[in-house]
Amino acid sequence: MDFIGRMERLGEAMRRERLDALLVSHMANVRYLCGFTGSAGALAVAAGKKGLQASFFTDGRYTQQAKEQVRGAAVSIVPGAALTEAAGWLAKRRVRRVGIEGLQMPVAVRDAVVPRLGRTTKAVATRELVERLRMVKEPGEVAQIRAAVRLASSVFDEVLQSIKPGVPESRVAAELEYLCRRLGAEGMSFDTLVSSGTRSALPHGVASASPIPAKGFVILDFGVILGGYCSDMTRTVHVGAMDAKSEKLYRAVQEAQQAGLDAVRPGVKTSEVDRAARKVLEKAGFGRYFTHSTGHGVGLEIHEPPGLRKAARGAAKAKTPELRLEPGMVVTIEPGAYIPGMGGVRIEDMVVVTPEGHEVLTPTRKDLILL
Amino acid sequence: MDFIGRMERLGEAMRRERLDALLVSHMANVRYLCGFTGSAGALAVAAGKKGLQASFFTDGRYTQQAKEQVRGAAVSIVPGAALTEAAGWLAKRRVRRVGIEGLQMPVAVRDAVVPRLGRTTKAVATRELVERLRMVKEPGEVAQIRAAVRLASSVFDEVLQSIKPGVPESRVAAELEYLCRRLGAEGMSFDTLVSSGTRSALPHGVASASPIPAKGFVILDFGVILGGYCSDMTRTVHVGAMDAKSEKLYRAVQEAQQAGLDAVRPGVKTSEVDRAARKVLEKAGFGRYFTHSTGHGVGLEIHEPPGLRKAARGAAKAKTPELRLEPGMVVTIEPGAYIPGMGGVRIEDMVVVTPEGHEVLTPTRKDLILL
Repeated sequence: MDFIGRMERLGEAMRRERLDALLVSHMANVRYLCGFTGSAGALAVAAGKKGLQASFFTDGRYTQQAKEQVRGAAVSIVPGAALTEAAGWLAKRRVRRVGIEGLQMPVAVRDAVVPRLGRTTKAVATRELVERLRMVKEPGEVAQIRAAVRLASSVFDEVLQSIKPGVPESRVAAELEYLCRRLGAEGMSFDTLVSSGTRSALPHGVASASPIPAKGFVILDFGVILGGYCSDMTRTVHVGAMDAKSEKLYRAVQEAQQAGLDAVRPGVKTSEVDRAARKVLEKAGFGRYFTHSTGHGVGLEIHEPPGLRKAARGAAKAKTPELRLEPGMVVTIEPGAYIPGMGGVRIEDMVVVTPEGHEVLTPTRKDLILL
Repeated sequence: MDFIGRMERLGEAMRRERLDALLVSHMANVRYLCGFTGSAGALAVAAGKKGLQASFFTDGRYTQQAKEQVRGAAVSIVPGAALTEAAGWLAKRRVRRVGIEGLQMPVAVRDAVVPRLGRTTKAVATRELVERLRMVKEPGEVAQIRAAVRLASSVFDEVLQSIKPGVPESRVAAELEYLCRRLGAEGMSFDTLVSSGTRSALPHGVASASPIPAKGFVILDFGVILGGYCSDMTRTVHVGAMDAKSEKLYRAVQEAQQAGLDAVRPGVKTSEVDRAARKVLEKAGFGRYFTHSTGHGVGLEIHEPPGLRKAARGAAKAKTPELRLEPGMVVTIEPGAYIPGMGGVRIEDMVVVTPEGHEVLTPTRKDLILL
């Protein structure tokens, strides 16, 4: 991983925000910038004449791990709160404008940490400063994500064998997770969703004790963590006899998903990808049942920028200019439609933006599977 | 679950803090107060002449679920951010002092939400306001926790069969999680820790690809979620021939754990429980290797108040008076000692405080197991 390049790009981002220092407390960002994979610690970064200086703080539980993992930053093992110590380190450097991670740092933590920066220092709440650097993946990151995607995808056919009427959804999730773990997954990247029958109309149907019905859709939405990077995929299969409306629904979502994929290329606005998928479902009469966005970035976190959603309007639009896709971004394309009382369909792949267009990472088939 | 009683106790807590309203955004607290188990939503609570009025806000993904689950609060499905809508609802009620959850609400969210409360309203960052209510469990909650503890405990003997030299730690974790899931666990309550040999000296050793060595300790720290409630247990076993120092270490931790349990009764300060366990390890010469606290509360979250740790000193002590144990509190007792380069031992039970003293919930044996 290119820690030197990351720090350089961080320096540029800080200059754009007129920050001469940054307190990094969100652990995915800490990991990205200095390699530490533990669950507690803080990174202080200060701009100097010779570029950025960085210092990492953690507690005694992580002495050995920090020594082994941290790159490009001094390591201090401290008895108190790492973030407070990091603030103290910055105070000694007499920095003026310090970024804090506004989307993650809790109010009470801010209130405890900011006074440590000193009276003349101004704390500025940043939004997605490091996350935006993380959007464009390095080749090594894409390779790691690809490995995670393939691992998860490789269990799909075997999982299908456990989907039978009467089997609890949670049992299907258990089999799925076990297969992933046996193949070396460090963990699942989120709670496995298995929702069947009318429950498939719940877009967030965590696997329940409900049995798979004799007839209806079964949505499987799952992902693994491998080498710290996440995967995310969804497939919808159907058990029992299928009626015409269900088949129409599946075809429409499948077509919408393909339209979303087809729209992925450098320079395209994120809302245009959403628009491409949404248009297909609207045309098929299912527009109002597509109740979420088309996709999101994936990397060290299961949900990260860029989001692929409807364009903001009015004041919100002026405030945050819309992102355009760039080579190296990795996103999901996952339209769905959910008809209350009947059922739902969602199909999701991961895709990497390439200079020429895109490459679909998820190798799993998407044709209608009847069990 | 006693939602009426919870709201009454919330009203008392709000009066003590001189709050006439509260914005609840931390999902475990939302669930506790109104029963909603989804992952997005916000609860607004306003004090009135007839007691508290509550209104729950969520988005279209949760229409059906909110209708089925929410108790004691009106339900609104809103297109925008639930928390912003909740703030708008409070603004209409002309409340003056509104609590926001300081330990969880990010700075940027506060900055977006607080202006919606209106100019004359003061937002006050609270700390553990709802969490403190959650500390004392209702009988139904203890029953649910007991079920989670027993489920996790029931897989222990079978998991031991997978612990063999050469088997990757992650494989042991896979078997363990599969057994729990098959028994109906909704998920694991945290990343399963399996750390063997010298890795057992890492107090936060997430299961890695490292093989179990021919000789050394293996720490298993795991828990499940059942009915929304968490369990947490740790056992340490030994593979291969054991030397005298390792046996001494195990005995000392076992004795410390028993001393911790023995100290649990109503009225005891949380630091006294920590002291009881720590004293044993200090006496045995392992004090400096016990690098974490003795325990923590468990319930809807895997870590919740009360913490069982060393008493604060000086200014910090004056600021937060120490908690005393009360009947109905459920905590872990989990001393450990970790000798770098050699290995570590941790033993952890869950225990509920009873009017007479305590009841250990974890039924698993703690005698030294040699594999």
